[in-house]
Amino acid sequence: MDERVREHARTLVEWSARIETGDDVVLRVGPEAHDLAVAVAEEVATRDANVLPTYASGELSRAYLTGHEGDFETDPGFELAMLERADAVLTLGGGRNTAATADVPSEKRQAYDRARQGIREARLDAKWVLTEHPTRSLAQQAGMSYEAYQSFVYDAINRDWEAQAEKQAAVKDALDDASEVRLVSEGTDLTMSIKDRVAVNSAASVAYDSHNLPSGEVFTAPADTEGEVVFDVPMTVNGKRVRDVRLVFEDGAVVEYAAEQGEDAIREVVETDDGAKRLGELGIGMNRGIDRVTDNILFDEKMGDTVHLALGRAYESNFPAGREDEANDSAVHVDLIVDMSEDSRIEVDGETIQENGRFWFESGFES
Amino acid sequence: MDERVREHARTLVEWSARIETGDDVVLRVGPEAHDLAVAVAEEVATRDANVLPTYASGELSRAYLTGHEGDFETDPGFELAMLERADAVLTLGGGRNTAATADVPSEKRQAYDRARQGIREARLDAKWVLTEHPTRSLAQQAGMSYEAYQSFVYDAINRDWEAQAEKQAAVKDALDDASEVRLVSEGTDLTMSIKDRVAVNSAASVAYDSHNLPSGEVFTAPADTEGEVVFDVPMTVNGKRVRDVRLVFEDGAVVEYAAEQGEDAIREVVETDDGAKRLGELGIGMNRGIDRVTDNILFDEKMGDTVHLALGRAYESNFPAGREDEANDSAVHVDLIVDMSEDSRIEVDGETIQENGRFWFESGFES
Repeated sequence: MDERVREHARTLVEWSARIETGDDVVLRVGPEAHDLAVAVAEEVATRDANVLPTYASGELSRAYLTGHEGDFETDPGFELAMLERADAVLTLGGGRNTAATADVPSEKRQAYDRARQGIREARLDAKWVLTEHPTRSLAQQAGMSYEAYQSFVYDAINRDWEAQAEKQAAVKDALDDASEVRLVSEGTDLTMSIKDRVAVNSAASVAYDSHNLPSGEVFTAPADTEGEVVFDVPMTVNGKRVRDVRLVFEDGAVVEYAAEQGEDAIREVVETDDGAKRLGELGIGMNRGIDRVTDNILFDEKMGDTVHLALGRAYESNFPAGREDEANDSAVHVDLIVDMSEDSRIEVDGETIQENGRFWFESGFES
Repeated sequence: MDERVREHARTLVEWSARIETGDDVVLRVGPEAHDLAVAVAEEVATRDANVLPTYASGELSRAYLTGHEGDFETDPGFELAMLERADAVLTLGGGRNTAATADVPSEKRQAYDRARQGIREARLDAKWVLTEHPTRSLAQQAGMSYEAYQSFVYDAINRDWEAQAEKQAAVKDALDDASEVRLVSEGTDLTMSIKDRVAVNSAASVAYDSHNLPSGEVFTAPADTEGEVVFDVPMTVNGKRVRDVRLVFEDGAVVEYAAEQGEDAIREVVETDDGAKRLGELGIGMNRGIDRVTDNILFDEKMGDTVHLALGRAYESNFPAGREDEANDSAVHVDLIVDMSEDSRIEVDGETIQENGRFWFESGFES
């Protein structure tokens, strides 16, 4: 087996999920994530923990949803019982076709999700981590050869996460102490309040309240957004390509939107509900192992020298205890990304903390 | 999708497992059984039942067992909870290598199995069915091309099971009323008592207490076996090829054994324990869709015009209520097969019920 797969598995089990003796570990295995699942099973075994692999196939979900008529049962007992007793739930993504469920009507998908809220909560109550095995399907989505895509994925995942967490801690501290953030780039001049918010040092470990592998970002929940922003990193939003999305904010809400491509997809998002017109997240991408866009949000939003903003739902982890109900509420959470590597800066309470992709603590920082 | 896969799925869900509205259905999906799993998920959905697919991979099991040191936890709670609440457990076999776990020490496998007795019982308490998706690996084991193997499998599985069950009912009735069975073939003349036993009409449905798809046999539990038998159908026993196994019985127990090939494997079985020297099963293969040996016991033992005898453990279903404790007990249950298509006959209480592969109710029966 490729030694990089073993290192991925070790990172997932040890650093990310903090698996301990006796843990009951659910593995949600994508059809093409077999090799990673095998390596993870061995890592779990060496820690004297238990493993229960489930089969997470988009084609199977599509078949089930296609065949089903009428109401879905609320939180089927056998699945809920399994997840309520699980100590960890590790999702090992990797299929054959990223569009496998493209023809499932979204109302049906939503009805299914609504019926499974207890199951989702049980999963989120466990030590949960989402990662992906490099597949040919994802390589295709990225427009890359399989070999090159594998290297890209392992550069992003098999990192010195301890060192990454330390660097991110400096950025978290800067945000935690501050009241306002300003983003300046070509076409972008946006200010937002982050007063009384708690930034998350998302270092790819449940110990940091961070549940993606790779991660590598610091994020918080902004409010009172003013100004305009151009998202110059291309994306796929709800299955549609979008490019150069421009948003104008007044009093915290979107008052104007446009896009060079995919404006319909943006309209659909913005008009979902009131919360979708407000920002739920400001994330600063700091994973320098991710050096290109691969049309996969798990990777794109952590790319070094980028910032992402999400329209919609905020994470409660960004609020002080007891004030979680202040989090922006919405049915959606859609990330959009700005390249900050050139002619750009991030100001925090008037001080530049990053310019042209260099933080104040890095060599090459010139402000 | 191949229409034969859909028919396989329908047969499994409708005829075999009798899935009903609201059933919680665990699918244990082999890595190469994806297409069947997709078809089964759709069939389960149309019955308004719930599905939870687990990933049944020999390579993953091997990795877990290889990595694990020390004692296994008894019946891990998350898996037990899932199975105790499941209404049905459908195993969809199909991997890439039938020898995937060949280098796992058998003591480790046995220790693992012993620690999971509650889990096994919970599975057997549900409506459980074992079937297999035709894979290239199984085609190779059978020495067949993939195309030819697919045809073979669907001939065995996609049958008129109602008609098959009726035919088998006649044989069950003949056995239920009788006290003694005699098998005569080249090198074989064996008598055994079946007094007060209940034959099972194994018609590939839980409604018939039959849990294999394909099935197609009638089986009972013999006692007081006397005489000799030559198993002329080649087999794999515990990973080793055996051919022309000869057993001599006195007072119900094996007193002599030999084999043209694989005698060591037979010795190992016979010397496991006292119960392994006695027969646990007499099965009469009646599935004429299975017309050749494919080195896969799920299919081989149901082959039309064969009889199989198992050394070791008997099934409680062959005993009248309250007398299940009379069932032969052993750590093993190893099936061996006799070809009855030529120069052979089955006598029940002195009456020939099958000669040269023809039953008394079939044309061509000459006795």
